[in-house]
Amino acid sequence: MNNLREIIELVSRPGVLSFAIGLPAAELFPRKALAEQASRVLNSEASSLQYGVPYRPLKTQIVQLMALRGVRCTEDQIFLTSGAQQGMDLLSRLLLPQGGQVLFEESVYEGIRLATQQQQPEILTVASDLSTGMDVDQVEAHLDGGARPAFLYAITDGHNPLGVSLSSEKRQRLTELARRYRVPILEDDAYGFLYYGETPAPPLRALDEEWVFYLGSFSKILSPGLRVGWVVVPPPLATRLSPLKHGVDLDTSCLAQHVIACYLEAGLLPVHLSTLRDEYRRRRNAMLTALRDHFPTTVSWNIPGSGMFVWAELPPGFDAGELLRAAVETESVAFSPGVIFCAGSPGGNRYMRLNFTNLPSDRIEEGIRRLGRVIRSPMKNTGPERLHASSRP
Amino acid sequence: MNNLREIIELVSRPGVLSFAIGLPAAELFPRKALAEQASRVLNSEASSLQYGVPYRPLKTQIVQLMALRGVRCTEDQIFLTSGAQQGMDLLSRLLLPQGGQVLFEESVYEGIRLATQQQQPEILTVASDLSTGMDVDQVEAHLDGGARPAFLYAITDGHNPLGVSLSSEKRQRLTELARRYRVPILEDDAYGFLYYGETPAPPLRALDEEWVFYLGSFSKILSPGLRVGWVVVPPPLATRLSPLKHGVDLDTSCLAQHVIACYLEAGLLPVHLSTLRDEYRRRRNAMLTALRDHFPTTVSWNIPGSGMFVWAELPPGFDAGELLRAAVETESVAFSPGVIFCAGSPGGNRYMRLNFTNLPSDRIEEGIRRLGRVIRSPMKNTGPERLHASSRP
Repeated sequence: MNNLREIIELVSRPGVLSFAIGLPAAELFPRKALAEQASRVLNSEASSLQYGVPYRPLKTQIVQLMALRGVRCTEDQIFLTSGAQQGMDLLSRLLLPQGGQVLFEESVYEGIRLATQQQQPEILTVASDLSTGMDVDQVEAHLDGGARPAFLYAITDGHNPLGVSLSSEKRQRLTELARRYRVPILEDDAYGFLYYGETPAPPLRALDEEWVFYLGSFSKILSPGLRVGWVVVPPPLATRLSPLKHGVDLDTSCLAQHVIACYLEAGLLPVHLSTLRDEYRRRRNAMLTALRDHFPTTVSWNIPGSGMFVWAELPPGFDAGELLRAAVETESVAFSPGVIFCAGSPGGNRYMRLNFTNLPSDRIEEGIRRLGRVIRSPMKNTGPERLHASSRP
Repeated sequence: MNNLREIIELVSRPGVLSFAIGLPAAELFPRKALAEQASRVLNSEASSLQYGVPYRPLKTQIVQLMALRGVRCTEDQIFLTSGAQQGMDLLSRLLLPQGGQVLFEESVYEGIRLATQQQQPEILTVASDLSTGMDVDQVEAHLDGGARPAFLYAITDGHNPLGVSLSSEKRQRLTELARRYRVPILEDDAYGFLYYGETPAPPLRALDEEWVFYLGSFSKILSPGLRVGWVVVPPPLATRLSPLKHGVDLDTSCLAQHVIACYLEAGLLPVHLSTLRDEYRRRRNAMLTALRDHFPTTVSWNIPGSGMFVWAELPPGFDAGELLRAAVETESVAFSPGVIFCAGSPGGNRYMRLNFTNLPSDRIEEGIRRLGRVIRSPMKNTGPERLHASSRP
């Protein structure tokens, strides 16, 4: 069962305990603080409801936020977007010609494929190591072999779906390759502030400001419902993004820009980030403990230091899509099968992406216990032949 | 001076009395009511800050709103967008192949050109009558001659930039042509609720639900800063818009969707619309009176029954771009020169678009008085030769 619509239908069934979607914890949204800022903004600034140019005070706040990630930039390098997804769409429009090449990991965030699909690109892929991230040797082999992708897409920390963070050595090598071959890197840093151990190494943008185009987002650290993100690019590129943005949605919500700027100016983000990290660390640990307790030893997984996901590998003979169907139908529990994230040729059918941020720890424990039962159930472990037969409608 | 960037720079100068941009009156935004709804939503619904599926109660409210325009539709025909501009972008992506044909009026909203520019379309044009709207004979001639545009773009009421509304007879004929030649019409109804005389005839979508794809927006009737619009399309088309939307920005702001739905459910819109119509009618009348009092009789203009704009024609020898430069520099007053709205070959250089909704009546009177002085000034009325010379850098 590799049909995306069917998968979405399955994981959206009411009452299902779901690890499928990359949702932040709604109960941790700083609703009261945002309500206060919204009320203040609406009662004092009519311009917050008007059309408007990008709100400079928000850019100033983002410059300061980027400094926390070790990135030095200026307001003129910041382009505000309706979420990081729009950054991917606009940069794809700008950089990727029809039928051009892009370079993705074999398991890649599905949104970058959607953002590039209009250009029907030739997708080059590289493997990923679950401890150190993208295979940089393979990147070099592509470039050395003459490939000239419009860009390489990378999630440096808390990879979606793989949960891995790129090693420091690979960060250096990737930016060196970008410079040497003049190939831009779209660095998606949606999860960079959500780390659960040591502060991670700075993102690629800290190592190169000419060839790394950075995508940031308030969705994971504040709220997706505000739809505000940003890109950090050289100023001439920001200038060229402007008319593209005008054509796709005119403005990023002025109200959301003002509310976020006020929230940041009030100095509320650092404490909130600390709360998020503490709680998400607890949830990650609850998932890791539950996996150890309830999954058979034939299943393996990595330990994510950042982000929202654990990536687990099922033993040979399993099909994660079939397992999902059984999991929803028999135990009311869901995850995302790896095939959703597969760039290029079909594959990934033994992988599961498990989100650990959306459910509280006790529900995580219960959900993983149920999933363990499904995996151990004999009906799901009868080899490829039976699975093939049962995948017919 | 036909350079758009230069025009934007000119009309954005601080202190300039501007009729240039199509802005609603910020002082009429229902800020207090929206602040109350935002506060209620944020304090009671964590899901308003989450990712989410389009908010069904908002669709239900839009169905009721559409009924006020004489349009019968169902929730399944409504697709929510980040403003009407996104509807144009998504429908262009869906309907318009690379290098395909589109059919525009010679003077057309610049946003539809931006929304289609990625597809580098062949732009077919038809003239417009300033009393009855788009020249439907020319539309028929194109179609009869074998043209098969991906769509025809039309603003039925309160045309931007022309201020005109389409006659009832032309509404009938246009939808008949769409059906006969199986050519979709993108009907942009951003201004349909802003009428200043009799209730206008229903939009094209009321006459045909198969070939008319309707674009609606809360920007002009509630607030552009919320970035919420909608399209009304046959359900199979709505289904196809979904993955496109996912690729460009994932979601329309859940917070904005919830706030607007609550505002509409509270029954606050009809009174607000009535307030808007009353005040905008006063402002339109103030502009028409000022034009009569302060412009030379060699300038002509139409009387808009809906929308936000008066379209004025300068006498031969004038260049609206040059006039704009003089107006900003000598009298600190601005408008949009017609060239901005020109589809296809350059032209429109004797036209001015004058917005009447953004300034209060006394400022409108003052601004038109100043513009009248600029037009009467001998330096701006020295014939094409001098104007041509002065347009060099």
